[in-house]
Amino acid sequence: MPAPALTLESLNAMAPEAFVAALGEVFEHAAWVAEAAAPGRPYATVAALHEAMIRAVRTAPPDRQQAFIAGHPELGSRFMRADWTDASQAEQGSLGLDRLSADEFAAFTRMNEAYRTKFGVPFIICVRRHTRDSLLTQFERRLANDSAAERERTLTEIGLITRLRLNALVDGPGRPITEGRLSTHVLDMVTGRPAAGIPVTLHEIGATARGLIAQALTNADGRTDRPLIAGEPLRIGTYELTFRVGDYYGGAGTPFLDVVPIRFAIAEPEAHYHVPLLMTPWSYTTYRGS
Amino acid sequence: MPAPALTLESLNAMAPEAFVAALGEVFEHAAWVAEAAAPGRPYATVAALHEAMIRAVRTAPPDRQQAFIAGHPELGSRFMRADWTDASQAEQGSLGLDRLSADEFAAFTRMNEAYRTKFGVPFIICVRRHTRDSLLTQFERRLANDSAAERERTLTEIGLITRLRLNALVDGPGRPITEGRLSTHVLDMVTGRPAAGIPVTLHEIGATARGLIAQALTNADGRTDRPLIAGEPLRIGTYELTFRVGDYYGGAGTPFLDVVPIRFAIAEPEAHYHVPLLMTPWSYTTYRGS
Amino acid sequence: MPAPALTLESLNAMAPEAFVAALGEVFEHAAWVAEAAAPGRPYATVAALHEAMIRAVRTAPPDRQQAFIAGHPELGSRFMRADWTDASQAEQGSLGLDRLSADEFAAFTRMNEAYRTKFGVPFIICVRRHTRDSLLTQFERRLANDSAAERERTLTEIGLITRLRLNALVDGPGRPITEGRLSTHVLDMVTGRPAAGIPVTLHEIGATARGLIAQALTNADGRTDRPLIAGEPLRIGTYELTFRVGDYYGGAGTPFLDVVPIRFAIAEPEAHYHVPLLMTPWSYTTYRGS
Amino acid sequence: MPAPALTLESLNAMAPEAFVAALGEVFEHAAWVAEAAAPGRPYATVAALHEAMIRAVRTAPPDRQQAFIAGHPELGSRFMRADWTDASQAEQGSLGLDRLSADEFAAFTRMNEAYRTKFGVPFIICVRRHTRDSLLTQFERRLANDSAAERERTLTEIGLITRLRLNALVDGPGRPITEGRLSTHVLDMVTGRPAAGIPVTLHEIGATARGLIAQALTNADGRTDRPLIAGEPLRIGTYELTFRVGDYYGGAGTPFLDVVPIRFAIAEPEAHYHVPLLMTPWSYTTYRGS
Repeated sequence: MPAPALTLESLNAMAPEAFVAALGEVFEHAAWVAEAAAPGRPYATVAALHEAMIRAVRTAPPDRQQAFIAGHPELGSRFMRADWTDASQAEQGSLGLDRLSADEFAAFTRMNEAYRTKFGVPFIICVRRHTRDSLLTQFERRLANDSAAERERTLTEIGLITRLRLNALVDGPGRPITEGRLSTHVLDMVTGRPAAGIPVTLHEIGATARGLIAQALTNADGRTDRPLIAGEPLRIGTYELTFRVGDYYGGAGTPFLDVVPIRFAIAEPEAHYHVPLLMTPWSYTTYRGS
Repeated sequence: MPAPALTLESLNAMAPEAFVAALGEVFEHAAWVAEAAAPGRPYATVAALHEAMIRAVRTAPPDRQQAFIAGHPELGSRFMRADWTDASQAEQGSLGLDRLSADEFAAFTRMNEAYRTKFGVPFIICVRRHTRDSLLTQFERRLANDSAAERERTLTEIGLITRLRLNALVDGPGRPITEGRLSTHVLDMVTGRPAAGIPVTLHEIGATARGLIAQALTNADGRTDRPLIAGEPLRIGTYELTFRVGDYYGGAGTPFLDVVPIRFAIAEPEAHYHVPLLMTPWSYTTYRGS
Repeated sequence: MPAPALTLESLNAMAPEAFVAALGEVFEHAAWVAEAAAPGRPYATVAALHEAMIRAVRTAPPDRQQAFIAGHPELGSRFMRADWTDASQAEQGSLGLDRLSADEFAAFTRMNEAYRTKFGVPFIICVRRHTRDSLLTQFERRLANDSAAERERTLTEIGLITRLRLNALVDGPGRPITEGRLSTHVLDMVTGRPAAGIPVTLHEIGATARGLIAQALTNADGRTDRPLIAGEPLRIGTYELTFRVGDYYGGAGTPFLDVVPIRFAIAEPEAHYHVPLLMTPWSYTTYRGS
Repeated sequence: MPAPALTLESLNAMAPEAFVAALGEVFEHAAWVAEAAAPGRPYATVAALHEAMIRAVRTAPPDRQQAFIAGHPELGSRFMRADWTDASQAEQGSLGLDRLSADEFAAFTRMNEAYRTKFGVPFIICVRRHTRDSLLTQFERRLANDSAAERERTLTEIGLITRLRLNALVDGPGRPITEGRLSTHVLDMVTGRPAAGIPVTLHEIGATARGLIAQALTNADGRTDRPLIAGEPLRIGTYELTFRVGDYYGGAGTPFLDVVPIRFAIAEPEAHYHVPLLMTPWSYTTYRGS
């Protein structure tokens, strides 16, 4: 996550027009949201600023709210439509939705159409909290909602999307509003010490594919120098950590344990998942730590 | 392993000619081995009978021993040569060596030729103790042996091969001479009880492929009704047990643990490997048990 | 538990008078119970015989049942009353109730009197399923029962007492009706092998005292040659297993782990409690196994 | 540990006489040690100041060094000798050496005499790194040393003693030179969350007694609000942590696990010992963490 270009302090001090220009695109094509938030300045935290903007959306007249929702791009569109905002493009790209196969594109198109037919607006979701598999699951679940529940869900997702945009744009107290983190720790129970030099990889396990997300070596403290994922939401999905422990214990012959795979699901994108490995040459324990 | 057709008791009582006819093919094309063992009857155990036959090979004149070794088929030949014994064909088939790809066949052919060039006899190995990967490793290691060490190794392998053939053929005390076994056990640490109904699979993990070896459900004692492998040597190689535990704990939402994979190597084909799983919805411990 | 003197086969074949003489004292001073069971012979199992005798008690006329219950000795009496049956004396002795301190004797006497005042009969409990602490707990709980619930509980206890007496007296199919068992198993996770030569002790942990129940060394399989308790009910109470592991790993200096204590409660006298230790010099795991 | 009264900054700036007056008693009755260190000012860290003072002792003429060592009080003296420095009295008191029984006092006296007879000086040891048991062990071991080894050991102990005194007296960079720490962490594997509200106690386990050192409740993070020991050396010895987990899982009936005791030795007074508990109602894992 690159350093934000703006500070909360400067936003609090700007002329209203500059404030709206700076934040206008946080909410898709809806400069009126920033306009509504301008008089409430100064904000003590980025979170408070975000809350004020969300309140503007939630209390807008129905027509305006509807038009605002309708103005979002459709998920999975492979055409670079000129009227997309830059932020929206980057978010969809991070999931690889612009590289869908023909079949997958067809599936997303069908879903999008079914959704638009039922609700009259595009399907809106904070894609940075999802893997491709959990996105499809969400699509199916939300298609079953009634209009009121789905409107509520849509506003929640808009809150999640714009919270991340605002965090990326503005520095100041209350930023980041909690983000997810995935970390590990390897302890060698033969020596009672952290295990250094263990190669660790993290893969996302999709229904049909497996993608490498991170790789690292454990350091002298048995941890990776940086968390395996940090500073952004964890994508809901299934993951596999692998620890290559065979060389660590060395010795002649084939070790009983060489690659230790640990497969687990992430369900809370903003939580801290700590997944340690307590190992010997013949056993291991893993758990969700804290 | 089908029930043997002969009993040690009947072998002990047979006329010498019938004894040689019954056991003549246990040692490849070498009826003289059975002939040498006939006068030592009665044998108290199948193991003692096998020991006597092996002694006949080890104390045979060098020419006869050499001819005996040279009479073995080459590993990995895909042509069904009429002069192979039936036992030898079945053993090679169990590893799928008759279904090698063109490239693999070429590799085996090269190794066989290099071996024959160096040692003047075919490469002999008890294939039923090996996966394809460990077979290639053995090929490479043994090519580096000197003649004396390799002769010794070859006689050891002949002992392993014929021990299994004799076990398959003859029933009686001392049979089976120890065979390998792989078993598991799942305990649910939330209830302090065995976990029943957990789907378990066992795969062989080759360098380039993954083969399903066994699948089962845990019973009321948290074990599979039969060991995952039993009654024959465990093949030296890498394996993965997977336990599908997600449904067991049920509940709403995605479980943290769904499929638990445990990857381990087997290095001792005649040993008992017990690999239990102590689990909760958020943690597990596995180890080589006994 | 000494070998029983009678067989079910011989009981099934005896004249009715001999049958009654042989079993008359299983139910305290109530030869009529054996008399009622005699015509139902032959019994296929010891358990079936016991069931028939219990049925006789439960279906007896109220007066006879009441007199039978009233004929039991009082718990904790330190006077050897001549009219006790031998079986009843041995059972109370096993808990050390004949060696109560003056205070403890006073407490038991008070309880007995309160019980007799409320229910008009002595307090009956299968003492071999209890430690002194759980006995006091039971006394208090049962004093709170109404008459019907307490009569039911008393008959259940008489069933438990006489089941053990019959098991001790008669050999045959269906004996022993399940008894408890406490076992352990020590695995060394540094070598992946059972840990031999580990001193193990088992203590009962009372509210005011600690009593040694068993001590043993682990054998080559990491187990004790005999279960720590077997062949009789486990007494409901708190226990501590200790494993002296410090010498096992040897080495210079003070080991991190020397004595490993594991404290646990037994609540089911007829169950199998297996409490293993998976250990390294720096860690261990214990659990209720199966 | 109370806040130090001096800062390194002020010591660096003082007149030499004031500097010597401030630090003169850090080294027992030896103002010349501070005098020797005064010209080397300014010191960048408290550790560097300590190193300079130790160097003065190690490079002192043999007579002066010998007199300095001889000037230390004898360990375990129960008489408050007027010429002891205050620092020395506080240190011995922390182990309870001024409350020795008559027998213990006799044992210490015998040891002191044997030591003085052999080496001609009192036995010097940094008592704050020891329990009574490890102190006796050290006494025996060091009595077996030759003079050179014992002189070296004595200077090392003086370094350890004065390092702690200097830390208590002076604030500034490089203070505290690493001290020990003992902490714990309880995770509930049923919920995958830290276990809050678990009562934890820490006892020292002596050869003949058991002393309560700390008690605490785990907080929302499953830790104690403060480490169980921190900011001073851990005393070499045997300890027992107990976790009262029975109420945590609640439910009807007696829990299998109620009090979980974990017994371990501390051998490195300046290290961090982290001893977590991963628990369920039926199992637990503990280990030396980091």
